[in-house]
Amino acid sequence: MSKEKLKVVGQPLPRVDGKEKVTGKARYTGDLGLPNIAHGKILRSPLPSAKILKIDIGEAAKIPGVVAILTRDDFADIDPYFGPAFRDRPILAIEKVHYTGEPVVAVAAMDEGTAESALELIEVEYEELPAVRDLDEALSPGAPILHETIRLAGQFADLASIRMEEKSNIGHHFHYERGNVQQAFKTADRVFEHTFTTPPVYHCNLEPHAAIARWEGDELTLWSATQNPFPVRTELANIFNMPLSKIRIISSYMGGGNGAKAYAKVEPLAAALARKAGLPVKIALTMEESFKTITRHATKYRVKTAVTKTGEIVARECEIFWDKGAYGDIGIRLVRKSGYTLPGPYRVPNLKVDSYAVFTNKVPAGALRGYGVAQSTWAIEQHTDMIAKEMKIDPVVFRMKNLLNKEEEFHPGDPVDCDFKGGLQTLTKAIDWGKRSGKSRGKGIATFLKATISPSLSQAIIRIHVDGSATLMTSTTEMGQGAKTVLGQIAAEELGISLDRVTVTDSDTARTPYDLSTVSSRSTTLMGRAVQKAAQDAKRQLVEMASKILSVKEEELEFAENKIRPKGSAEKGITVTSLIRDQLLGGEVIGVGMFRTEKDMRVPLGAPTPFWEVAFAGAEVEVDPETGELKILRYVTAPDVGKMINPLLCRGQSDGSVIFGLGQTLLEEMVYEDGQLLNPNLVDYLIPRFSDCPEKLETIFIENEDGAGPYGAKGLGEGDLIPVAAAIANAIHDAVGVRITDLPITPEKILRALREKE
Amino acid sequence: MSKEKLKVVGQPLPRVDGKEKVTGKARYTGDLGLPNIAHGKILRSPLPSAKILKIDIGEAAKIPGVVAILTRDDFADIDPYFGPAFRDRPILAIEKVHYTGEPVVAVAAMDEGTAESALELIEVEYEELPAVRDLDEALSPGAPILHETIRLAGQFADLASIRMEEKSNIGHHFHYERGNVQQAFKTADRVFEHTFTTPPVYHCNLEPHAAIARWEGDELTLWSATQNPFPVRTELANIFNMPLSKIRIISSYMGGGNGAKAYAKVEPLAAALARKAGLPVKIALTMEESFKTITRHATKYRVKTAVTKTGEIVARECEIFWDKGAYGDIGIRLVRKSGYTLPGPYRVPNLKVDSYAVFTNKVPAGALRGYGVAQSTWAIEQHTDMIAKEMKIDPVVFRMKNLLNKEEEFHPGDPVDCDFKGGLQTLTKAIDWGKRSGKSRGKGIATFLKATISPSLSQAIIRIHVDGSATLMTSTTEMGQGAKTVLGQIAAEELGISLDRVTVTDSDTARTPYDLSTVSSRSTTLMGRAVQKAAQDAKRQLVEMASKILSVKEEELEFAENKIRPKGSAEKGITVTSLIRDQLLGGEVIGVGMFRTEKDMRVPLGAPTPFWEVAFAGAEVEVDPETGELKILRYVTAPDVGKMINPLLCRGQSDGSVIFGLGQTLLEEMVYEDGQLLNPNLVDYLIPRFSDCPEKLETIFIENEDGAGPYGAKGLGEGDLIPVAAAIANAIHDAVGVRITDLPITPEKILRALREKE
Repeated sequence: MSKEKLKVVGQPLPRVDGKEKVTGKARYTGDLGLPNIAHGKILRSPLPSAKILKIDIGEAAKIPGVVAILTRDDFADIDPYFGPAFRDRPILAIEKVHYTGEPVVAVAAMDEGTAESALELIEVEYEELPAVRDLDEALSPGAPILHETIRLAGQFADLASIRMEEKSNIGHHFHYERGNVQQAFKTADRVFEHTFTTPPVYHCNLEPHAAIARWEGDELTLWSATQNPFPVRTELANIFNMPLSKIRIISSYMGGGNGAKAYAKVEPLAAALARKAGLPVKIALTMEESFKTITRHATKYRVKTAVTKTGEIVARECEIFWDKGAYGDIGIRLVRKSGYTLPGPYRVPNLKVDSYAVFTNKVPAGALRGYGVAQSTWAIEQHTDMIAKEMKIDPVVFRMKNLLNKEEEFHPGDPVDCDFKGGLQTLTKAIDWGKRSGKSRGKGIATFLKATISPSLSQAIIRIHVDGSATLMTSTTEMGQGAKTVLGQIAAEELGISLDRVTVTDSDTARTPYDLSTVSSRSTTLMGRAVQKAAQDAKRQLVEMASKILSVKEEELEFAENKIRPKGSAEKGITVTSLIRDQLLGGEVIGVGMFRTEKDMRVPLGAPTPFWEVAFAGAEVEVDPETGELKILRYVTAPDVGKMINPLLCRGQSDGSVIFGLGQTLLEEMVYEDGQLLNPNLVDYLIPRFSDCPEKLETIFIENEDGAGPYGAKGLGEGDLIPVAAAIANAIHDAVGVRITDLPITPEKILRALREKE
Repeated sequence: MSKEKLKVVGQPLPRVDGKEKVTGKARYTGDLGLPNIAHGKILRSPLPSAKILKIDIGEAAKIPGVVAILTRDDFADIDPYFGPAFRDRPILAIEKVHYTGEPVVAVAAMDEGTAESALELIEVEYEELPAVRDLDEALSPGAPILHETIRLAGQFADLASIRMEEKSNIGHHFHYERGNVQQAFKTADRVFEHTFTTPPVYHCNLEPHAAIARWEGDELTLWSATQNPFPVRTELANIFNMPLSKIRIISSYMGGGNGAKAYAKVEPLAAALARKAGLPVKIALTMEESFKTITRHATKYRVKTAVTKTGEIVARECEIFWDKGAYGDIGIRLVRKSGYTLPGPYRVPNLKVDSYAVFTNKVPAGALRGYGVAQSTWAIEQHTDMIAKEMKIDPVVFRMKNLLNKEEEFHPGDPVDCDFKGGLQTLTKAIDWGKRSGKSRGKGIATFLKATISPSLSQAIIRIHVDGSATLMTSTTEMGQGAKTVLGQIAAEELGISLDRVTVTDSDTARTPYDLSTVSSRSTTLMGRAVQKAAQDAKRQLVEMASKILSVKEEELEFAENKIRPKGSAEKGITVTSLIRDQLLGGEVIGVGMFRTEKDMRVPLGAPTPFWEVAFAGAEVEVDPETGELKILRYVTAPDVGKMINPLLCRGQSDGSVIFGLGQTLLEEMVYEDGQLLNPNLVDYLIPRFSDCPEKLETIFIENEDGAGPYGAKGLGEGDLIPVAAAIANAIHDAVGVRITDLPITPEKILRALREKE
């Protein structure tokens, strides 16, 4: 369909859920109630590592209003472990606790106060064990071993043997290489090696985790603030040994997801507690509890690069250690998928990649917007800058020499769909690259590439009603990103109707068709294509009916403006309404669509990415050399979106993503002391305020209509966050000549670096 | 599929919702709650016919907790009339009230008590008008006219002109004839004419009407105890001028439907009140209010038949007047469809049928189990008996002469699918026809035929999950009839899995596909076929996938035991699970199915019935000649089910239907005095107790596997009720020689008849 014909797609329409949300009427999981519902509260471990000797619930059980107390003793008839890749996390701690804050006992009572009072009467006797506090300790010889055995979820079972050595804290090791790295380093003109670290950070969704579980006979319904209802359904089926058809997961609005709400978190406990209580149970975590549920991996990234004297990369060795915390969560996939792109968007003929998942006695780490690429980009894009600076090559020129060309293969079988060089030119022009605006001021740039999850499948159903309005049934979840609006626009465009005549469902595993997950910026592209195909399937059926009525061959008919008509004829034809009324007796046309990525075993992960998420970042900063204070004068983000389905929402995604990245760059760090998390709240854990935002924030959308999604769209939303930290670090170095390699970049670190430099 | 291969279908499996229901855990609409919900109560008219002069809500509005008071003044921006065929019923009375009990004002308050108190403070000033009390008054010259104009719903609009004469109380007239009736009567050997009447009766569902309405922005969700969510959706879209996609009707369990819950009843008011309140509103009627919402038509049926001297029917004239009460509801369709079968299951070469809808100032009448055929069978099967007795021909012999043969056309284009003669033989054998067991004892028989609703469409979606379990998405409602179990059995049979691995959804117009309605005993047949087709569509996709994997042509593969394998090979093949896991990446197979009746304009209603519902009834009674007391010694019902999907549920349906019919035969009558209904409650309105049941109740299922439904099934459930009254009346005549022609048959009437006979 040519660009000028688009009527709904490409329009900056207000989000369909906007009014409900700004008027406070939108209902989130925590707002839901059920008759006779009990409330669940959790007793958590006070120690990072300990053996549980005894649990005494006797006094707590006597409190009126307490309906159930769940402990490790209630797991005889279920398999109490969950986790989407590592299946190692117990619903409640069993023999040992592995981090401070781990759930040990759960109480259901008819009101929250009673449940909390009951927690105070429960006595747990622990025998403290030595704890592993960070990556270095975890990898030290003789370190305590968190998990003696590694259990993986079904689909990862064949990777179970990939552990560096027995009895270590390394839970998984992803390795791949090509060319002859050793030889290339031996003969290289120049070799550079640097190490970078990032701390654990938190997602800070304004809505903490929440779930309501209700059993009816042998059926379980769970309302949950989850980004991926279907994987959660699988986990519950495994735990309770149930057919998938007996489990219903409903996900309505979420107040942010950002990866924290991917995969089961509080759902297994809610289900187990409701099962014991014989009543529906709601568990709504506090912000502090959410901090103790899932976090982002701390990392240590060592990268070594061999370069010709004219600046061409010839070899690279990348080694990254991911601090998993106490349990594995999606670790295997993260270690592998993010490991895959460790070398960055550059041509690297000789390459060696090692990516390690390492257990420590901390809050488990999982997905967070950017999914590992934020940490590796922090490293690789500074490393790139450091090489260029040391070689006295302009960092843009250095990148231009080494960036992949469009269609060039990142890895055999996996070509890039992005014009990196064109994008970088756009960015450098926008940021006035090469012009210095004052003393202690400098500019930095960064870019990256991120694969989306693959293999992957999205399915959609479109039902066209007799009045021509339509219902789009999709399991994509709405967590603020605007999926309902964007998918609705795609459906409306295809059906030739206005957006207000399309209703997009909430996700409901028992009603709406399968979707892998609302993660990895995949929904517009993959679900978008499924929606398009569902609409096309519906239109095909209408054309088939019209062909019989009009006595015109199907191939000579076209669908336009909610009518089926002979091609090119604006007058003749038959409306959708009259076809459905007469041919389907007032029923509905049901269109089914599916989009699936193809497998290719040449690619280390088994399938090429359907699109690459790419953005270009430019920052201009000013550093106060007396205080180390950093001012971000200007920030330009240029995401390669392929095609904007809704420019208003794209802008919101990009701007929000940059600010999110700024928090991780400048402020955020989960601080531990003796295994205790010191700042699990939004008073002590800092996220950006308006005063932390750039004075000028500019967004340039690169629209080459070359994506795999509908109308050439690609994923958006994570990308703008990813290069923020490196762009700013590079700008600081450009401004005052100091280099910060461990996040966050605080005035103290800058000042210390300035002093050390003096 | 041959009979012996069936594994799930034909099994007397316990109903899937049984445990929930007997443990009291099943949730009905009235059990549902929502946060911040208001309760609606209704002020009703005290008069059968009056002009509303003034409504004063001032005092009521002042009560704390009252959130909205709805009157006729709130209808400026909506079209406040509803009705599925006649669109004449206002949400609240506008200029006039047309029956005692008609809603006039509705109050929403935060608790029921407050809403009720508010009703007491509302003052309505009426000017009483003369009322039309019954059919005779309505049809008298000079009678007050209830409705000056007739407004019909969209799909019936082209019938708007069919009114006998302007300014009468006849709202619709259905006429058809064939042959030369006048001539045939002139030349006939014998002519018989009789008149029969039935009173208005009530459905007596244990669950009264209930609905919850919630508006969110421009979207309306309605939880309703409704048998047909899709027609209700249409009505609401018309009232509020909304796209169908913006309205969601969810129907969970119902405590009986029986036609009372077909088409909008309390839903428009709940929606309008919630709209004004700005809060969700629940309206749950009392039993008394439900009595004043919908009822079954009183009738007066005159039938005249010409017969040869050997007992062959040569001509028949049928004229029936249906007492619609104050508003039309589904009246047009009922008058036409039931009118169509007025002559009964007999060969009638010359025929004239007239069926009239007549308005009176009483509670509106609509569908009730049997849909008009119960009333006409009361008449025609006594008339048949009376002719036979007068001609001294055995009533069985007389029927055998005149019953239609299988495949013979009831009307051109509409052949019967039932072996009437075989069925009647089965019945007469079972009841020991011809043997008299004692003094004042006698036997009677009756049969009938009933068309199901046509044209008609059912759609279904089956989703097969990666573990091989399945979700059947259907909008058939579960009102106690066992639809979830039966449809689940059909899906399980087709998919080769056990019933406990199929989950059948509730009806939800925004999630589950279109179905016309759960009425007219159509679900097993029509939705059953749609389910079968959906399963077949899913299997086709699996076979297609397997064909590629196994390199075997599709036509050489078969689906068996949840596997796809080369035909006849028990060993080889590939499981559904591995296909979905590998080919669909763990997603799901989505099968879509549809069953639609075909149009044929030769048939007066535009389409032949997809199946005929038929049953044979035999009763043996004893009459106490001193008191008129009637004892039913024995009752045999022999429904032609085609094929039982679940024998246990068939038995429940048949037995229940007979008892229901017994109530209407012996006890039930809504009694009016001066326009006031005197017995709108289950104390004064009598329904059968155990002591009213037959001493012996026998059910014989006729299974010729010749129905249009899956495995040869036909509809069941209404049929057993229909001939009860005529069979008993015929038996009474056989026992003591008196004939009761107006229902119910009370001891008083029998005694009076005995005395008159003396």
